[in-house]
Amino acid sequence: MRMRIFHAASLFGIAALLAAGMIPARAATGGNKAYASVDPFIGTAGGGHTFPGATVPFGMVQVSPDTQILDFHKSYGWAAGYRYEDKTILGFSQTHFSGTGHSDLGDVLLMPIAGAVRLDPGDPDKPGSGYRSRFSHSDEIAQPGYYAVTLQDYGIRVELTATQRVGLERYHFPADQPAHVLVDLRSSIYDYPGKVLWSSLRVRPDGTVTGYRITRGWAPGRRLFFAMRFSQPMTGHELHDLEGPLDYKGFAPPAANHPAERAQVLGRALVGVFDFGALKNPVLLVKVSVSPVSEDNAIRNLHAEMPGWDFDATRAAARTAWTQALSVFDVDATPGMQKSFYTALYHTMIAPNLAMDVDGRYRGPDNAVHQAQGFNFYSTFSLWDTYRAEHPLLTLIQPPRRTDDIIRSFIAFQHESPYGMLPVWSFDGLETWCMIGYHAVAVIADAYMKGIRGYSADQALKAMVATATYGPYGGLKYYMKLGYVPIDKEPEAASKTLEYAFDDWTIARMAQAMGRKQIAAEFYQRAGYWRNEFDPKTGFARARLSNGKFRVPFDPAAAGYGSDYTEGDAWQYSWYEPQDIGGLIHELGSDQKLVAKLDAVFDSKVNPKEFANVEDITGLIGYYAHGNEPSHHIAYLYDYAGEPWKTQERLRQIMDSQYAPTPDGLVGNDDCGQMSAWFIFTALGFYPVAPASNEYVIGRPFVKRATLTLPNGRHFTVVAERLSDANPYVGSVTLNGKPLNRVYIRQQEIMAGGVLRFVMQPQPNKRWGTSPAGRPYSMSTYE
Amino acid sequence: MRMRIFHAASLFGIAALLAAGMIPARAATGGNKAYASVDPFIGTAGGGHTFPGATVPFGMVQVSPDTQILDFHKSYGWAAGYRYEDKTILGFSQTHFSGTGHSDLGDVLLMPIAGAVRLDPGDPDKPGSGYRSRFSHSDEIAQPGYYAVTLQDYGIRVELTATQRVGLERYHFPADQPAHVLVDLRSSIYDYPGKVLWSSLRVRPDGTVTGYRITRGWAPGRRLFFAMRFSQPMTGHELHDLEGPLDYKGFAPPAANHPAERAQVLGRALVGVFDFGALKNPVLLVKVSVSPVSEDNAIRNLHAEMPGWDFDATRAAARTAWTQALSVFDVDATPGMQKSFYTALYHTMIAPNLAMDVDGRYRGPDNAVHQAQGFNFYSTFSLWDTYRAEHPLLTLIQPPRRTDDIIRSFIAFQHESPYGMLPVWSFDGLETWCMIGYHAVAVIADAYMKGIRGYSADQALKAMVATATYGPYGGLKYYMKLGYVPIDKEPEAASKTLEYAFDDWTIARMAQAMGRKQIAAEFYQRAGYWRNEFDPKTGFARARLSNGKFRVPFDPAAAGYGSDYTEGDAWQYSWYEPQDIGGLIHELGSDQKLVAKLDAVFDSKVNPKEFANVEDITGLIGYYAHGNEPSHHIAYLYDYAGEPWKTQERLRQIMDSQYAPTPDGLVGNDDCGQMSAWFIFTALGFYPVAPASNEYVIGRPFVKRATLTLPNGRHFTVVAERLSDANPYVGSVTLNGKPLNRVYIRQQEIMAGGVLRFVMQPQPNKRWGTSPAGRPYSMSTYE
Repeated sequence: MRMRIFHAASLFGIAALLAAGMIPARAATGGNKAYASVDPFIGTAGGGHTFPGATVPFGMVQVSPDTQILDFHKSYGWAAGYRYEDKTILGFSQTHFSGTGHSDLGDVLLMPIAGAVRLDPGDPDKPGSGYRSRFSHSDEIAQPGYYAVTLQDYGIRVELTATQRVGLERYHFPADQPAHVLVDLRSSIYDYPGKVLWSSLRVRPDGTVTGYRITRGWAPGRRLFFAMRFSQPMTGHELHDLEGPLDYKGFAPPAANHPAERAQVLGRALVGVFDFGALKNPVLLVKVSVSPVSEDNAIRNLHAEMPGWDFDATRAAARTAWTQALSVFDVDATPGMQKSFYTALYHTMIAPNLAMDVDGRYRGPDNAVHQAQGFNFYSTFSLWDTYRAEHPLLTLIQPPRRTDDIIRSFIAFQHESPYGMLPVWSFDGLETWCMIGYHAVAVIADAYMKGIRGYSADQALKAMVATATYGPYGGLKYYMKLGYVPIDKEPEAASKTLEYAFDDWTIARMAQAMGRKQIAAEFYQRAGYWRNEFDPKTGFARARLSNGKFRVPFDPAAAGYGSDYTEGDAWQYSWYEPQDIGGLIHELGSDQKLVAKLDAVFDSKVNPKEFANVEDITGLIGYYAHGNEPSHHIAYLYDYAGEPWKTQERLRQIMDSQYAPTPDGLVGNDDCGQMSAWFIFTALGFYPVAPASNEYVIGRPFVKRATLTLPNGRHFTVVAERLSDANPYVGSVTLNGKPLNRVYIRQQEIMAGGVLRFVMQPQPNKRWGTSPAGRPYSMSTYE
Repeated sequence: MRMRIFHAASLFGIAALLAAGMIPARAATGGNKAYASVDPFIGTAGGGHTFPGATVPFGMVQVSPDTQILDFHKSYGWAAGYRYEDKTILGFSQTHFSGTGHSDLGDVLLMPIAGAVRLDPGDPDKPGSGYRSRFSHSDEIAQPGYYAVTLQDYGIRVELTATQRVGLERYHFPADQPAHVLVDLRSSIYDYPGKVLWSSLRVRPDGTVTGYRITRGWAPGRRLFFAMRFSQPMTGHELHDLEGPLDYKGFAPPAANHPAERAQVLGRALVGVFDFGALKNPVLLVKVSVSPVSEDNAIRNLHAEMPGWDFDATRAAARTAWTQALSVFDVDATPGMQKSFYTALYHTMIAPNLAMDVDGRYRGPDNAVHQAQGFNFYSTFSLWDTYRAEHPLLTLIQPPRRTDDIIRSFIAFQHESPYGMLPVWSFDGLETWCMIGYHAVAVIADAYMKGIRGYSADQALKAMVATATYGPYGGLKYYMKLGYVPIDKEPEAASKTLEYAFDDWTIARMAQAMGRKQIAAEFYQRAGYWRNEFDPKTGFARARLSNGKFRVPFDPAAAGYGSDYTEGDAWQYSWYEPQDIGGLIHELGSDQKLVAKLDAVFDSKVNPKEFANVEDITGLIGYYAHGNEPSHHIAYLYDYAGEPWKTQERLRQIMDSQYAPTPDGLVGNDDCGQMSAWFIFTALGFYPVAPASNEYVIGRPFVKRATLTLPNGRHFTVVAERLSDANPYVGSVTLNGKPLNRVYIRQQEIMAGGVLRFVMQPQPNKRWGTSPAGRPYSMSTYE
């Protein structure tokens, strides 16, 4: 854990720090292993795109420092607003994505200022040129639900914590300087000219500041409302419209020329400055709530969740929530592994996010306000990523209610969508149409097959079928007619065909379990459509034209946006038939052919510059790109060909090279928890290659022991005897003391509780797990 | 009445016209005098800025043809979307202002098209260059609640009618041409680049088309939602974004490149085309509802008010509503006068407008959604104009509930306003800050003094005082401190001081009546602040600097935006002390001095070009500008100086020169009914010079007889014996048979019912109405 004691003794005595709760909680209260092992800085450098700020699990507000706001063309590295390498902080905004490869948010940026106020952030290379401030990592603390930093230019200590819908900031101002808080409504992650379509900033008679903005970003026309209150009375304020009013015959609200007298300002470039004078009590708190619905609802959220001003109690509550969430695992591992493990676990519980006000209202994909009836509405669904391992993990580490709420949110979304579709990549209830597939169906089917059924299965299946048959989406009308997506009609056709076929298989699985034979038959048929794109001659999945011919020329290493594949190439995508690896082996000709192909994936000499044109292809081992999701299941496929020791080798290669307990320890975008969920499963020794199969394919464990407290109260323990760097291979496996010779375990075996015991050894055990009878599920099998 | 029979016999037989209800209703059913006398074309040429389209009284939807959409710099003449001089129609939009001098609206423009579709309106000088169509007045019918025209370029007959919240259009398409309806969400009255901040257009699975737009117009950030349905099934549609998507990394909704497959389009330049093929039944209806709240609420409004497709019944219901509203007066006058009178009456009941959905929700000045509890929320308050005569008239011709609702809307507005102020010039619940003063207080006080009290008087008075003491508004903080608005701190200071003082007097009146002595005393004092701007040396109200000196140089004929006066000069504004004409006479020195000043106003030789820089100063008689409101009471002021025959003379001069029963018959903006309300009162023989005084100052009648059915069921009749052009002077007046020697009548005398009988004569009667004891109310009197 990044446990830095705050050294600014020149500003504050230790006693004051203790009184202010600024000594890290562990030192004060002891804490527990799980909580103390989390380092929120992991992923804030490198490719992780995580943020270090404060949130509660799945919280709506995620308040965090932003270090750079750039035009979106240059913003990839700043998708979470903060980069560890930066030297200045712009301020603290209320909303962030965790680990995304595209971005938005950074709403309602607050900056405490001591002394003179500048309205622009200034140049990071010219300290003092604007309101931004220098900072040092040595003054920084990040813990789940808590963040602190010292703004060196102002001598202000800042602490952040949060409830579900409210961010709470505590500022320790220096003496004898006028204290201000600046609010910049222009500031937005992934900025561009004209992104803020309209905004409002208003000071109410009781001192509450409210506002909203409508942005044209990733989600077009998004509305974000907020409310904030300060713990001490304002002595003055200024409301600026830095763009100035548009000349529409010059009618203006009262005091339009006097920012200090304005009660409200409307426009597209709004900055507010709230003044508090030279404070007698130098500690000023500000609480900020957000709402997708209205300013009034933001005020409701504020009052309901944070009626008072107890920063320490709020911080303690956030800590308790995280301690509870993280302690589902009791892990015994090396210190670095333990830190990586619990930080990964932390990162799997930041998204999806609550996207609903305390009164149950939320904004749906029609951009209208709806009322949730008996469930919590969630959003921030990075589904192309998270259906793989993040959502399957949540079914094990969270109460079923969480997944039920997610699925009920999906169903509501489909009902409200102008397209009648389940979410693809949505946040704040709005659709971004980012990435491909309709993987919400896999999330639903996975949960249903696992017995998580706190929703109407009929409604769910109806929504799934409606989504999978919506012709205008991503070439689906051709896919349904031709059995594949033709590349002359639709870009990234090869990837789309493969992913649709997998999603279709999950629909078939659920329909079959529900006794809906006709739907099951239809979608089992579609689940085989991957073959229509597979070229046995080259041994790759390839894009086909609508005349049936494969597109030429064909280069299996060619990647690019809008190419035949999605953020990938044939080397990465050809093995995406998780529902039918037996069929893939058949197409290739033999187990050995698959193994040879997989070896070629990992062992090819590849110049990373080949992929410089695709931001997300990172973390290369040969063609294997762990930094992006299409590769995530590949290492496990050796199991299907009877060579599990090769899976074990590749996993070690990946774990050693792609993760580290350092700020740059995530080689690719965490993608709302998917990179981290992969890590958790892999560290435990198994992975859900085909969600909805109810099977986890066995790799090898990376922790000595891990006990999972299941939602049903039982315990499932993984033990890795003799685990060490010298013993990287699985020698034997027992489940509850009985030898396990198959290379997968079943969902119900985990849920029953028990012990999965590995005995590790220095050399591959080429007899364990090699039997065709012990292979994981496949639609078709060829022996 | 403009009673044109539709002559397009080449397109439709008379039988079909009858069946379609297209023969004007009078011909078919008889109708009554009031309804049949209205000509909605009056004011559509000249300066009136009225629209000829269809609405019910005070309706939320006011559907009307638009002939030109121009940049707002050139749009003054097209403030209502339509000009009688134009040769082409762009389409039919759902919302309009009646008679304003600044503008907005023109939302959701529909255009039926037969044959090929063009997406742009094209050049009016090049017929056929776009979707606009030529038309002829000979094909046009306009009646209260009904409008019809033939689009010559398409051979389509169009008819419009409406309910409160729904516009209904009936299109008669020619045979054998594909029928389309184009919806242009770009089109907006008072346009400018970037006015549409964001918009949406969506086709729902059941064929309902919904959408919204957010505009940056007169009311900044206004939201307008709509829903429409067609009477026949669509065969196809196209949803265009003619601006194209902004490049934010290129994620796009399904079928983004296929306008025909889109379920929704979002953007800033949206056009939808809805196709119906070659219709077997050539009559296609479309109904369009609007909502300030949401698309769902627009759908609710649509279903609640118009579940079916009966155009004729809807038209008949609109006719019934108007017949009822108009028949409060039974007027006997010359045909021209009768037409002018009933058309004026019609124009007094177009605004204010209902601005609330069927579920009682509306949008307030905080741009948030609120729920009306037990009242109807109204907006479109052109208060600087309408407090003078429009609102006082409504208290006589409409049930008290109408005014109660208006006042409850005011109170709700003040409560929701970020400024805590009553409306100044608001529409759709939003504030525009147009014009000066806080005349909502005069509307409330006038109603209260008349006994209309269906609201909390305490809340009302609180809102009035809060408004009148809001320092940042229009120099009020200086006014409260110095006793006048200083011109070096605030433009148009002379006008503001005068109008605030009048408004303050109305607050004092109401506070006194409520027994709130302290408030009454404070505001009676403020009511005398007009003296602080009055310069006895020059005999004009003049702007004073904050050092107490009058600003020099002083030119009583100088006018200009942001000058010392508001849309006026010293010649027009100096007599604006309606609460204290006695005080004015004292300042001037004598009755004769006032008479001389008034004569100079009317008799000065003035070149209208002097006022070319102020659009609203029109209708000049000397300096008297009947086309703008500051002059409206001036002709009645002779009464206060004992020379009522001069009032009678001036009124004749005004009535003869400023009104005519023709399209160009309104010399100035009707201003949401104020010009028309002036006409109604003046035609009856009295006028509310000082609303809240409960007095009407007597002029002379212009109708032979008029019986007003009062809201309490009683009848008040004005009789003008011997009325003719040769007898323009009042010889004698009796009220209920008793001689009336004062020059005013009281509100309670009207409400009691009775007969006010004038006997007209050729020469002035210089003895009637000359006694100081018979003069109207004045705060101070000096004999």
